[in-house]
Formats: sequence, C-alpha cells, structure tokens
Amino acid sequence: MSNLSDITLIAADWGTSNLRIWGIDHRGHVINTINNGKGMASLIPSEFEPYLISLIENWLPKEGNAKCPIIICGMAGAKTGWKEAAYLKAPCPPINKEKIIQVETEDQRISVSLVPGIMQKSPPDVMRGEETQIAGYLSKNPDFDGIICLPGTHTKWVHISANEIVSFKTFMTGEIFLSLSERSILKNSVQSNDFDSTSFLEAFEDTYSNPALLSSKLFGLRAADLLENTSTKFLKSKLSGYLIGSELAGAKSYWLGQNMIMIGNNDLCILYQKALKKLGLTATIENTQTVTLNGLKQVFPDSYNQ
Amino acid sequence: MSNLSDITLIAADWGTSNLRIWGIDHRGHVINTINNGKGMASLIPSEFEPYLISLIENWLPKEGNAKCPIIICGMAGAKTGWKEAAYLKAPCPPINKEKIIQVETEDQRISVSLVPGIMQKSPPDVMRGEETQIAGYLSKNPDFDGIICLPGTHTKWVHISANEIVSFKTFMTGEIFLSLSERSILKNSVQSNDFDSTSFLEAFEDTYSNPALLSSKLFGLRAADLLENTSTKFLKSKLSGYLIGSELAGAKSYWLGQNMIMIGNNDLCILYQKALKKLGLTATIENTQTVTLNGLKQVFPDSYNQ
Repeated sequence: MSNLSDITLIAADWGTSNLRIWGIDHRGHVINTINNGKGMASLIPSEFEPYLISLIENWLPKEGNAKCPIIICGMAGAKTGWKEAAYLKAPCPPINKEKIIQVETEDQRISVSLVPGIMQKSPPDVMRGEETQIAGYLSKNPDFDGIICLPGTHTKWVHISANEIVSFKTFMTGEIFLSLSERSILKNSVQSNDFDSTSFLEAFEDTYSNPALLSSKLFGLRAADLLENTSTKFLKSKLSGYLIGSELAGAKSYWLGQNMIMIGNNDLCILYQKALKKLGLTATIENTQTVTLNGLKQVFPDSYNQ
Repeated sequence: MSNLSDITLIAADWGTSNLRIWGIDHRGHVINTINNGKGMASLIPSEFEPYLISLIENWLPKEGNAKCPIIICGMAGAKTGWKEAAYLKAPCPPINKEKIIQVETEDQRISVSLVPGIMQKSPPDVMRGEETQIAGYLSKNPDFDGIICLPGTHTKWVHISANEIVSFKTFMTGEIFLSLSERSILKNSVQSNDFDSTSFLEAFEDTYSNPALLSSKLFGLRAADLLENTSTKFLKSKLSGYLIGSELAGAKSYWLGQNMIMIGNNDLCILYQKALKKLGLTATIENTQTVTLNGLKQVFPDSYNQ
C-alpha cells in the first residue's frame, strides 16, 4: 500500500480560483491529491509559499538533503501570482523544459518551478495553464494535428500542428455568462439547475446565424420572463445558447474542416458538443486532470518518466 | 418671483436608480425641481409613498380640498415598483391618456397616476419611461417618421410612424459595459476618465464588420494590457467601441435609410453619434429632461396645456 513517505515530487495546477496538488512517488505514480486549495486570486505573492507548505507539510521528507521538487503550472506564474514566469511566444511547443522558472523559497526542503504561459503577439492573446493541458494531450497523441478547444471562463481555441501551438483565440464567453447570470437584470430570470436542450439549440442557432443580435437577444430573455413568464430553465438554457452561438460563429476560422478535441469541465464541454453537432462536427472530451498531470510530467526529472 | 405655494401639480420620472421631480404651477411652468431622489430599485412598494411625501412635503398645499395631482413615468410602474401599470401593446401611441393608472394613497392631499410602459409581443421586448420621452419628442415634432435611438443601460431603437411606436429593439450594451468595466478580468485594464476617438472608432469598425468576434476582442483588451502595457484610456475607448460596433450591426434593420434622433445621456449619445457618422448617418441629440417633461405634460389636466 502506498504511503505519504513515498512522495518524492509534488505537481500542482494553481489556477485563478483553485489549486490542485498531486503527491508523486519515484516511479511517477500518484500517492495523494489535494483538490480544493485556494486560487491565486485570493493570495498575495508572499502568501504562496507558507500556504503551500501548510497544505503539504506532512508530504515533505522529515530529514535528508534531497530537496522535494514542486512543479506548478497556471496562474501562480502570473505577474500578480507567486513569481512571474514570462510568457513563451507562439508559435512554439506548449512546454519547453529549458524555459521553466525557478522560485527561491525560504523553506529549504523544497525546490519550486513554474511552467510559463504562452503569448501571441497579433492579435494579442495569452494563456496560462492551458499550455500544460495541451502538452499533456500531445504527449499521448504526438501526431495530433488540428484544434484543441478548452471551454471555461475564458474559452481558448488553439491550432496545433507539428506538436506546436501555431495560434490561438480566447473568448470571454464563460465570464460573460457568470456576470450576466449573477449580477445583471437577467439574474432572477436565469436561476435554475435544470437544462433544456431544445431551448439551448434554438438560441444557439439564433446568434450563430446572426451574432450581432447577441446583446438584444440577451435583453429578450428578461422580456420573455416579464411578458410570458417563461421558466428559468428555458431562459438559462437560452442564455448559454446565445453566448456559445456567437462564440462558435467567431471561432469558425478555427474549427472549419479541422480535427478537434476538447479539454475542460465536462458539463460545459457537453454543451459545446451539442452545439458543434449542429454544425456537423464531433469532438471528443479529454479528462482535464489527466491531461494536466501528463503535461506536468513533461517537466519531471527524467527518472520519473521511464 | 415664483413661489413653492404656486405649485399645483407634480410630475416625476422615477427610474431604476434615480428619481427626478418637477413642481408645476397652474400655467404648466416649472417652479422647482428635485434631481437626485432614490431610484425604484432601492425601495419596496410600501416605501414609495412615504419617501415621495418626505421629498415634496413643503410643496403640498397646507389646506383646501383640491388634491395635488402627481404624474409619474418610469420603473415606479413596474411589477416590483410602487404599483404595476400594465404594459400597453405596440403598435400603439407612446402614451394613451385613458390608460393612465391611479394609485391609492394614504395621504389624502395627493392623487397619484402612473404612465404605463410599452410591450412588444414578438420578439418579446419592453420599455418603461422611454415611451414618455418619445411622447414628449413627438408632441413638438408630430410629423416625425423614423427612428428614435435611446442610448443607456438598455439602449432602445424605436421605429416611429404616424405618431405610433411601430416596433422596438433593446440592446444590453450599457449594462454589459458597466459589468465588464467594474467586475470582470478587464476592470483594471479600463479604468480611465479619458477617451480616445481613434481607438474607439477602430474598435467600432472591428465588431461592426465582424460582430461574432465581440467576446474575443474583449479578452484581447486584457491581453493588450498584459503584453503591450496599453494605456487604460485606449483600452476603455476600445471597450466602448467593440460593444457599440456589435450593437450597430445588430440594429442595422432599424437605422438603414431612416431619419434618426437620439435621446439620452449626452456623453453617451456623442459616442453613438461618432459611430453613426462612420456609417454615413447623422442624428441630433434631444435633451432628455425636456422631452421627459413634455411627455408627462401630455397627461396633465387640459387646463395646464393651454
């Protein structure tokens, strides 16, 4: 049976609002995980080290000279994170082992590295964390050529060719959805845990075919609530549909005629799948945690990847 | 010199976030005004009467049997306002004197009426307050045929013909602008009191010609801040431009080949004017307070409009 004392390396995905940590043994196997740590947005730079240590204290070796490597991807490497890991510039491979950033720490038991994000100069765009997921997917699918779509707060569409990120485009769809459903005039009209595929697809087709009507269709949800007393289930489904319809119209140059896979929250990926199916596209959904860990493994010391 | 004791009628524009009140004498002249009362959103139904009385107490007659008429337009007539004034259904004249709603009051010195809003069945849409501004404009321009654009939190495009509201379309542009600039990942990138017309117009043309790219262009503002350290003045101007570009593309069936005037906040109307000029359109800006009061005058007792 595996034991915390077997942990010799720690990997982490430190995003804006969440922190996931894996304790790894010398063969590269996961011994333990922490899933709900605080995200980068709720910490100031000086808090990262003590906060991380407080979570992993009992994973660290009690004595000995070998430092425990800690490899971190995501927003911890942002300008306002633990330490800035300057962006690599696309086109480029998603991870370049030689460009990993070292972080000096007070605690001498650990040796912390940050995976840099990727930037695109024109049109200006950035990613942090997604590059690691992409590297993880490509590590198992080295011949993949096509589009990786990563739905989320800031959905990314990434063109991959010859194991490189060629170009990418981010849409604020998820953040606009959250903002409208939590804090706008629509908020009381779209509170529901249920979903209606027909409403979603109708709304999707409306803005896919006429994306300029997006902000008018959004107000129409409020009007439908007032005038027709439409159920919040239908209105929430339409809100998703309108936003994803406009995004898929804008991302057409990415997905048209391409292979495509998706990485992200499963429920959200399924929404994109339903919409893509209407456009005659299929896209399989990869497990986010699996591809993230596989990506982080690309920068483990060689002995772990044998 | 005019005197508070000359006030014999009170008119009010009671919106979501603001209340404006006019004290009027028997000839229809304004004797006094209150400009910054609490909006409907911060009051529950039972608070409207005591709050209004507290503001106008010293305008009310000390004695006598004649009640002081108080005529109110705007969100005070919404379902969650003072009392619901059911929508009139377009196509219809903006105000129908016979459809004014009476409100019962505790205080016997006043007689309160609410001007109903207008609804459109398909596509579902609503307005409250704008109908009074439109009525005010038409009272001085009875032959107007064309489009009235009312920029604001929820911008309205209204087709007027033969003194009726034929159809209208609302865009959430203003609310999306506020939400993104105050509470999104863009908030630190767009804090500025300055404005750059060139950036605004460039951004306007981007989304006017390709509205599907709106949510991607919005994320690009954040990326430009991170990568190019672009001044917030330019980024804020672009945020406005992207949102108005997408709206004007969506409202094309309204403005194309039409006469047009605008009613709304002057600074915001000037932005729309700049954008419309790029499309070869001119639209004069009407003074909001003037048209609102002129609209309310349409329901004053006949003796005031001689």
